[in-house]
Amino acid sequence: MTPRVLLPWPDIAVPDGVEAAVYDGTGTPPDVSAVEFYVLPYDSGPEPPQLIAEMPSLKAVQSLSAGVESLLPLIPEGVTLANGRGLHDLSVAEHALALVLAAQRDLPRWFRQQQTGSWDREHTRSLADERVLLVGYGSIGKAVERYLVAGEADVVRVASTAREGVHGIGELPDLLPDASIVILVLPGTPATRGVIGARELAALPDGALVVNVGRGTAIDTAALTAEVAAGRLRAALDVADPEPLPPEHPLWRLPGAIITPHVAGGSDSFYPRAKKLAEQQLARFARGEPLVNVVR
Amino acid sequence: MTPRVLLPWPDIAVPDGVEAAVYDGTGTPPDVSAVEFYVLPYDSGPEPPQLIAEMPSLKAVQSLSAGVESLLPLIPEGVTLANGRGLHDLSVAEHALALVLAAQRDLPRWFRQQQTGSWDREHTRSLADERVLLVGYGSIGKAVERYLVAGEADVVRVASTAREGVHGIGELPDLLPDASIVILVLPGTPATRGVIGARELAALPDGALVVNVGRGTAIDTAALTAEVAAGRLRAALDVADPEPLPPEHPLWRLPGAIITPHVAGGSDSFYPRAKKLAEQQLARFARGEPLVNVVR
Repeated sequence: MTPRVLLPWPDIAVPDGVEAAVYDGTGTPPDVSAVEFYVLPYDSGPEPPQLIAEMPSLKAVQSLSAGVESLLPLIPEGVTLANGRGLHDLSVAEHALALVLAAQRDLPRWFRQQQTGSWDREHTRSLADERVLLVGYGSIGKAVERYLVAGEADVVRVASTAREGVHGIGELPDLLPDASIVILVLPGTPATRGVIGARELAALPDGALVVNVGRGTAIDTAALTAEVAAGRLRAALDVADPEPLPPEHPLWRLPGAIITPHVAGGSDSFYPRAKKLAEQQLARFARGEPLVNVVR
Repeated sequence: MTPRVLLPWPDIAVPDGVEAAVYDGTGTPPDVSAVEFYVLPYDSGPEPPQLIAEMPSLKAVQSLSAGVESLLPLIPEGVTLANGRGLHDLSVAEHALALVLAAQRDLPRWFRQQQTGSWDREHTRSLADERVLLVGYGSIGKAVERYLVAGEADVVRVASTAREGVHGIGELPDLLPDASIVILVLPGTPATRGVIGARELAALPDGALVVNVGRGTAIDTAALTAEVAAGRLRAALDVADPEPLPPEHPLWRLPGAIITPHVAGGSDSFYPRAKKLAEQQLARFARGEPLVNVVR
C-alpha cells in the first residue's frame, strides 16, 4: 500500500487503515504519488511545498503556519488548504513580550555588562502605564493583549478593519503621536505592505519603540533604519524586509535595535498544539467531515 | 523656618504651611535638625538612612522600598517606619517576566548573533504550558502571576505560610521535581535564607530555570553555580548573594546564566506611583492620621 497521508512527525496518530509516511522536510521525500492529505513540515523552507506538484491524488493540505500567503499559488484547483491559525498564538505573543520587555528593561545592556561582571545599575523604562498601540487584532493580537493587560499597559487596539473597540488602520496618524510602544502583529497581505512608512514613523514621539512580530513587509525598513540610526526611535524586530536581513544591513548594529531571526512562532509550546490539530484534521478527513481552519 | 519634611524629589506636593527640603542622596544634605517626616531617597546606597541619626525631631520615615530589613536597626524607638509595598509590584513583575522570557526564548543567543548579522534560526523553549513554581505570594508575586496566567503557564503558588490555594515552603521538596521554572519573589528575612540550597536544586529536573527577583540570600549561590556550570540547570537572576556579585565570580560567565544588577524595582512606572504614595502619606501626617504601609 502506498501512503495516503504525509506527516511531518512520526508520532501523529492516524485513523485506522490509513497508511502514513513521514517527511520532515530534510533528505529525500518518500513516494508521494498516492498522498491525499499532506501535513506540511513547519518552517522548513521552500522545498516541502514544491512536493505538492508531485501529488496527483491530493485532496487537502494542512499548513502549520498562520500565514499561508506564499503557499496559495502552489495549491491546485479543488485542493483544500487549511492553516495553523491559533497554534502559534502564545508562542508569538510571548516572543512579542520578550522583545518589548528586553527593549524597555535594557536587557542588551545588562547582557553586555555580564561579559565583564559589571554591577553598574541604572533605572530603566517600563511597560506598565505605557500607551501601547497593538496593530493587528486577530487571535495572536488578542494573546499579546492579555499579556499587556496583565502588565497594566494602556492598550489601544488597531486592526485592518475598524470595529467596536478596535480602531481602523486608517486612524493610525491620529493615534501614533500618543503611543510610546507600537506592536505590529499583521499578516503579510498587499493591504498591510508598508503601513508603517516614513510618515507614520515621523508621527511617533521621541524614544518610542517599534516592535514587529507579524510580517517584515508592514514596515518600510529604510525609513525605520534612518529613525533608529538618528537615535529618535527604537526597534525590536522578529521579522524584517528583506528576510533574512543581509548581514551587512546597518540595522543589525544600531544600539537602539533588537533583532531576532523570525523565531517568534517556533517554540516548544507549539508542537503539542500542532500535533493535536493534525490528528483532529486527519480524523475529520477520514470521516468525510469538513476540515477546520480552511483558507481555500 | 527649618524644614519639617525631607523629600527625595522636589515635585512632591506638601501640605500647606509645611516647610520641605530636598535630598536625593547625593551631595551634602541640608539642615535636618527639625525634620519630622523623612521620605528616603530610593535605592541610593547606605548614606541616606544614616542621616536618621541626626534627626532628633523625627516622627516618621517613609521608605520607597518593599524590603526594609536593613533599615529597621536604624529607626529610633517611637519613630514610625512605613515601606513602599506595592510601588514596585509591576516593575518587579515585568522584570521577572523579562528574565523568564529571555531565558526561555534564547535572547542572549539572538543578541550575540545580532553582532555578526546572523539569521541562523532554531526553535526555543517557551513559557506557555510550562509548570512554574511561584515562590513568594505577596503583592509582587500576585503581579507576576497575572503575567504567567496571561501566558498560559501552569502556575503553582508557594509562600512562607501555607494557605488556601497556596503551598507552604515546606512542601518544596514534593513540588520541585515537576517544575520546569522556579521564580523566587521572597523578602530577605532569616526564614527565607537559603530556602533554595543544594538539595532543592538537585530536586529540579534537568534543564529547569531558576529565576530570582526577591533577595539573593534565598539561594545558595555556590550550589546554584555548580548546577549551572554542570549544564544541568539554568539561572536568571536580578539579585545575588553576595551583592554586588564580584566581577570574578564564575556565575557571570556561565552560558546558562543571565544576570541583571538588581534593577527589577527601578523603572519608570515606579516614580509616579512613589510620588503619589509620598503625597498621600504627608497629607495623613499633616492631618494627624495614621500612615498606611506601616512596618513598625
